[in-house]
Amino acid sequence: MLRMNLPRRIIAEFVGTAILLAIVVGSGMMGARLAGANDAIALLGNTIATGAGLIVLIWIFAPVSGAHFNPVLTLARLWRRETSTTEAAAYIGAQLAGAIFGVWIAHAMFAAPIFQIATKARDGVAQGFAECIATFGLIGTILAVERNRPDATPIAVGLYIVAAYWFTASTSFANPAVTIARSLSDSFAGIAPHSVPMFIAGQAAGAIAAILFFPWLLHKEVAA
Amino acid sequence: MLRMNLPRRIIAEFVGTAILLAIVVGSGMMGARLAGANDAIALLGNTIATGAGLIVLIWIFAPVSGAHFNPVLTLARLWRRETSTTEAAAYIGAQLAGAIFGVWIAHAMFAAPIFQIATKARDGVAQGFAECIATFGLIGTILAVERNRPDATPIAVGLYIVAAYWFTASTSFANPAVTIARSLSDSFAGIAPHSVPMFIAGQAAGAIAAILFFPWLLHKEVAA
Amino acid sequence: MLRMNLPRRIIAEFVGTAILLAIVVGSGMMGARLAGANDAIALLGNTIATGAGLIVLIWIFAPVSGAHFNPVLTLARLWRRETSTTEAAAYIGAQLAGAIFGVWIAHAMFAAPIFQIATKARDGVAQGFAECIATFGLIGTILAVERNRPDATPIAVGLYIVAAYWFTASTSFANPAVTIARSLSDSFAGIAPHSVPMFIAGQAAGAIAAILFFPWLLHKEVAA
Amino acid sequence: MLRMNLPRRIIAEFVGTAILLAIVVGSGMMGARLAGANDAIALLGNTIATGAGLIVLIWIFAPVSGAHFNPVLTLARLWRRETSTTEAAAYIGAQLAGAIFGVWIAHAMFAAPIFQIATKARDGVAQGFAECIATFGLIGTILAVERNRPDATPIAVGLYIVAAYWFTASTSFANPAVTIARSLSDSFAGIAPHSVPMFIAGQAAGAIAAILFFPWLLHKEVAA
Repeated sequence: MLRMNLPRRIIAEFVGTAILLAIVVGSGMMGARLAGANDAIALLGNTIATGAGLIVLIWIFAPVSGAHFNPVLTLARLWRRETSTTEAAAYIGAQLAGAIFGVWIAHAMFAAPIFQIATKARDGVAQGFAECIATFGLIGTILAVERNRPDATPIAVGLYIVAAYWFTASTSFANPAVTIARSLSDSFAGIAPHSVPMFIAGQAAGAIAAILFFPWLLHKEVAA
Repeated sequence: MLRMNLPRRIIAEFVGTAILLAIVVGSGMMGARLAGANDAIALLGNTIATGAGLIVLIWIFAPVSGAHFNPVLTLARLWRRETSTTEAAAYIGAQLAGAIFGVWIAHAMFAAPIFQIATKARDGVAQGFAECIATFGLIGTILAVERNRPDATPIAVGLYIVAAYWFTASTSFANPAVTIARSLSDSFAGIAPHSVPMFIAGQAAGAIAAILFFPWLLHKEVAA
Repeated sequence: MLRMNLPRRIIAEFVGTAILLAIVVGSGMMGARLAGANDAIALLGNTIATGAGLIVLIWIFAPVSGAHFNPVLTLARLWRRETSTTEAAAYIGAQLAGAIFGVWIAHAMFAAPIFQIATKARDGVAQGFAECIATFGLIGTILAVERNRPDATPIAVGLYIVAAYWFTASTSFANPAVTIARSLSDSFAGIAPHSVPMFIAGQAAGAIAAILFFPWLLHKEVAA
Repeated sequence: MLRMNLPRRIIAEFVGTAILLAIVVGSGMMGARLAGANDAIALLGNTIATGAGLIVLIWIFAPVSGAHFNPVLTLARLWRRETSTTEAAAYIGAQLAGAIFGVWIAHAMFAAPIFQIATKARDGVAQGFAECIATFGLIGTILAVERNRPDATPIAVGLYIVAAYWFTASTSFANPAVTIARSLSDSFAGIAPHSVPMFIAGQAAGAIAAILFFPWLLHKEVAA
């Protein structure tokens, strides 16, 4: 039964991550096109679109694949033995391919060249620290809310991203597949390839901290 | 029983679609009036108003007519044998008439000439592709969320439109009745009549893709 | 039992309407102070604050008084025999007094003169028509959603007001107590006294239309 | 059982309040960086981030510690005998320490000096009165909604703060730990130390008024 489903789950991860990136990059291009140099207004549109779209994508795809769309979440599930190594590898491949495909969809919609390389530098240790905080919060949100209020998890993830786009100095990529894919878009949402490793290192650190901290915090003691 | 109800259902589609278009066009006019040349802020107001209003309209009218407000959704229901040809034809007629009437309501509220023809060109294959993606996502959202989390469907549709107004290059009309009616408003939300066919072609393609893809993806296998 | 409660219900209407007006007028003053001449951004803040605040106020006060905060809603309840004439009169008095008191709270918070008379003209038949549409939608939202999805009514009212602030040319007062109280604030949210009668006439017309239309539309037929 | 848990609850208050302050101060810095002198747009981003983030933080931490994050809420719980003096003291210490640590996280993410003193004066009796109203509404929201619609309490608190950021002249600190911590940030969200006492006095007055008023209002009479 599980094996039969695997192709469908992988397709769900591919399509869901593709639409997510089309939303992230497309709304960034719309914001930049309309707002000109006013990056705050562009980020507002980018934020609202991403938060709203992410909630809907999780409602759509969660019953099929769990709606990870994010390699660090898949690895967290693997760490917690909620998935197998094979499945995790397939998921991550689908997320990466989907993310890149989604960026290209955005470029096509906006009549921009499909293949681009980002030039927007996002450098410095502080940016990596911001990604660490952003990912710590994202993984913590998922681990805690799916335990406390499972029905609210999709909305919690969307609201968390709304907050994180604004409160983290890096605008919260919090996702290695998203980070790599956004290096292929020379737009508002882009990130220069040389800035990618620091982002992913921060994301990994934040995810590990969340995996260690939140299950301990939320563990219900049994009365002696 | 079904026949007795039909006039009431048609009136629900007419009134609901009219209010929807009054919201879309009216909030566009408000945005343009207040924001001047700053289209990003105008789109923000347009987005928030349309998303919030659409959720409410579905809560109001869904128990009467299903709250389609959209010919491609009615045709998707017909394809899935969830409605009859007669009813679908009546719905589509009511949607078109309601959409046009709603545009006129907006014009009257803003003391603008009632009868207008849009001059805002929205041309190019990329715009048609954007409408294809927009409609694929809209129909997919409805088909998936009404199966996974039926109570959340109205909110999902509203949030999807919030995202789609920003991430699709066409600002997501995703509805032939809306497209035709907006060709009768020479305002922020308008679309020149010569741009309409490409939009509707994209919408049809996206809807067909969604009708083929999502039921397959979401189909629950039965254990042998 | 009912009589014992009446003073408490009246106080709930007074306090709830006062906070509502403090929100409407206060957020308008904040928007104008920060946004300067950019009325679109001021309206965005005004909209978000009013929609969010209204949902919370209904959650707080609905179990005590029904959270009307609006004479046309109280009169609609009276028409539908859901309240008595005495109680309706007391409610409307409390709403008017609370609304005016709330305006003064806003003035005090912003260190402005407490007693003001608005000078912002909002004239013309189109404005009255906009208020008619705004109130038709508000009363329709309440009558329909409290029947279809009662738990969602507070959110529906808040979302409707978010939409109506943007899509109606009058920014949707939709409430005679709010209209009269806002004539006592010479600020972003103000309305000159000579513009008040047309607003209230439009609100009355819209409310009557909603009371006649929605119960008919939503009436469930009984199978013969 | 209760004692065993106390360290975990204190850590929850520390971490939750730290993230809350990172959100408040970080999103303020992001807004100021992107929006320049346009404080209205900066406040919009600040508002959306804080409201969305607060809802998520309550969903995460409420099952562990109750998600107070606020000394006046802890004192209200103590007044109502819902916690002990020892626990209240520990909570307040954790909130203060967490709030300050969160400000430093925000500074680190934005590559700003960690240790700062605010210079933004927020003086005058009107500001204190605004804090009184803000805190009256916050405590009232919590006391009323946790009784009327407990599942909605996290969302109600977030929406209330969204409204209060805009409708109170002080942008609604409504929290002594937040106020003190923000005196350590010379940024958009900062408050000069000499303005702090008036803010806290207003918060105390508002909280006391809410503790006296709302339980009386919401008390259900028993039929004789």
